[in-house]
Amino acid sequence: MKPPDKFISYLRKSDNFFLAVHINPDADAVGSILALGEALKRIGKKITLYSKDKIPVFYDFLPGISLITHAPPSDIMESWTLILIDCNIPERAGIKHCRFGKSLVIDHHQTEKNFGDIKWIVPEASATGVLMFYVIGALGCQITKEIATCLYTAISYDTGTFRYPNTTAETFHVASELIKAGANPSLVANQLYNSWSGARFNLLIQALNAITICDDIAITTVDNQMLDMAGAIPADTENFVNFPNMMKSINVSILIKEADDNVWRVSLRSQDGIDVAKIAEKFEGGGHKNAAGFKVKDISIDNLKESLINEIAGQKNESVL
Amino acid sequence: MKPPDKFISYLRKSDNFFLAVHINPDADAVGSILALGEALKRIGKKITLYSKDKIPVFYDFLPGISLITHAPPSDIMESWTLILIDCNIPERAGIKHCRFGKSLVIDHHQTEKNFGDIKWIVPEASATGVLMFYVIGALGCQITKEIATCLYTAISYDTGTFRYPNTTAETFHVASELIKAGANPSLVANQLYNSWSGARFNLLIQALNAITICDDIAITTVDNQMLDMAGAIPADTENFVNFPNMMKSINVSILIKEADDNVWRVSLRSQDGIDVAKIAEKFEGGGHKNAAGFKVKDISIDNLKESLINEIAGQKNESVL
Repeated sequence: MKPPDKFISYLRKSDNFFLAVHINPDADAVGSILALGEALKRIGKKITLYSKDKIPVFYDFLPGISLITHAPPSDIMESWTLILIDCNIPERAGIKHCRFGKSLVIDHHQTEKNFGDIKWIVPEASATGVLMFYVIGALGCQITKEIATCLYTAISYDTGTFRYPNTTAETFHVASELIKAGANPSLVANQLYNSWSGARFNLLIQALNAITICDDIAITTVDNQMLDMAGAIPADTENFVNFPNMMKSINVSILIKEADDNVWRVSLRSQDGIDVAKIAEKFEGGGHKNAAGFKVKDISIDNLKESLINEIAGQKNESVL
Repeated sequence: MKPPDKFISYLRKSDNFFLAVHINPDADAVGSILALGEALKRIGKKITLYSKDKIPVFYDFLPGISLITHAPPSDIMESWTLILIDCNIPERAGIKHCRFGKSLVIDHHQTEKNFGDIKWIVPEASATGVLMFYVIGALGCQITKEIATCLYTAISYDTGTFRYPNTTAETFHVASELIKAGANPSLVANQLYNSWSGARFNLLIQALNAITICDDIAITTVDNQMLDMAGAIPADTENFVNFPNMMKSINVSILIKEADDNVWRVSLRSQDGIDVAKIAEKFEGGGHKNAAGFKVKDISIDNLKESLINEIAGQKNESVL
């Protein structure tokens, strides 16, 4: 892969960069912003690293994490070049109100949107971290151990450490280069997968005990009482939705989490056939075909489950017709 | 990595090969034997693929799996060359009684034993599958899609899909080549991790409910009553030992399984510091520093737990002295 020449030449010639990631940043976003930030700093650029939302504590191990600011930028940022990372419109980064001198976009999410003066969007890339590896290389920057750790974490996360269908020979090639540059695979894996608190583990056990299965649909519910009993926090449910997918017979896994204000947060994962983004859209949410989510208010948990099961059944019937 | 010249030249010049894996074969053993068998077949050799024990059903997807025989070989096998795979003494393959014309060994387990006319034992290799990749290449055989799938599965399994400390840049390089040759990472990951029966999932939930934690040691027990309740089989406990390791506070995870004949099978996994191979050796078992196991008879479960906790405490005390 090769980034567009004008993307690289613009990074070289300009001086002040405002790097921003999407709201609810994940490891691909966080690893990518830190890696590019470090590289730009090393070639003498002035940088600001911005995330509207707090960074989940499990990413505290990433080198440079404390450099990310949450202080909202002012409306007029015309002396700065925006670099949108792992997203492609300012709304997704929570900075719709800001006017930048120029805007660059580097992302691997499919998009129809028309934003950005210079873009490098590659939907077939397994992670934005992969694109960042090539950008940093094209800038002539050394992939330091710190940069390698950030990028390896980004790529590991977005591929489920090389388990998701987006994993390619190129993903492995880049990972191999990052390890040569100092990334430590088991250290990163331990941070991503083996750094659970006891409370989170207890919450998982409670959640697994509470799974209900209806044909090929598994529904896991986590309410506030369970959080209290386990001494856990809402962020501890991260990844719970994937556990029922270990069963071959499960095609759709749904996680329903109670939020404070009579709101349910719903995550959906599907294997073959079912487009959960379409289900989420019916509840004014969104996502990808195999991973989507939404929030819903003022509905009983039983009615919510029934609605979801009906929506999935409806989609199955449509596909049969 | 490069296999010894005499190893390759012997494979080229001889004709009849009896390939054998260790008892309780895992995916590294099974993938490696199938890959080498296919390669030797393609260069015109006569082969027998032998496993004393049945192959777990989760490996049914591996190309050529039905070629593995469990029929015990006769005592006199002098017209055959033995190739021990993923183990290094005939006892481990359950063929101590057989006399072969010549014996080759290909393995990545540390060994003090003196067996084999020609050996390629590389403890720093992440899997025997990695060694097999280089052997097949040195033989001048094409890495077919089938061979690639077997080797990718072998390597994925033994590195926990690239999460264990044995994962290196070379592991990724080999994986990248195998994907180019046709291995499908998400298909293999789904077979290894997302093909559980409902019974196995129920057994996991029961096992998690039954974990006991003592400082940084988690002990999970699976007895026959739990198997019966879940409708599961002993092989369904595969990988259960790794779940408690998700907790940051756990350094040693122990899985104790009841076997039919008043025997307990014990698996041990450790993070930093504790050498579980040494613990297993005290019970006449063995393994690696971070992953080991043993069988023990005629001991109560409570005494067994206490002994294990004491052995671990003893090792901690030694390291402090």
